[in-house]
Amino acid sequence: MSEENIVYIGNKPVMNYVLAVVTQINTGTSEVILKARGRAISRAVDVAEIVRNRFIPDMDVENIAINTEEIVGNDGVSTNVSTIELQLKK
Amino acid sequence: MSEENIVYIGNKPVMNYVLAVVTQINTGTSEVILKARGRAISRAVDVAEIVRNRFIPDMDVENIAINTEEIVGNDGVSTNVSTIELQLKK
Repeated sequence: MSEENIVYIGNKPVMNYVLAVVTQINTGTSEVILKARGRAISRAVDVAEIVRNRFIPDMDVENIAINTEEIVGNDGVSTNVSTIELQLKK
Repeated sequence: MSEENIVYIGNKPVMNYVLAVVTQINTGTSEVILKARGRAISRAVDVAEIVRNRFIPDMDVENIAINTEEIVGNDGVSTNVSTIELQLKK
């Protein structure tokens, strides 16, 4: 799995990420991993669902994993943030 | 799986839901399902992670499923919303 197959979900409009996934698949990649943390987790799920329902019907969500990451801010205070990884496979 | 084992995640503070899950487990239930949709999806992942990391270390996330629901508003217009189900097992 090369780095190119990972799509990081941030605060942009959901269709930006949908387009990124569809483009990856159209270049011949059979697997894409969506990664998100914090509030972007909901958007990552939206991206997976929109890709599957509207663009690539034969794509499956192979695996979903959740985790916690510790983020240390500039002030040295660390906070925990939840993460999600959605493995999409065609 | 009875209805009692399902915890619906909404807009309340995350610790309310964590407490609900921990309480369920302490009454002898070995399995709890978290359900959320839309923006509450991120909060559902937070609940699962906090329960596992801070309260019940031997609890596993057995399965995670995502889906899409169609919601018809009062004006008859339907919108799609993503959903998540997290199956927690001790």
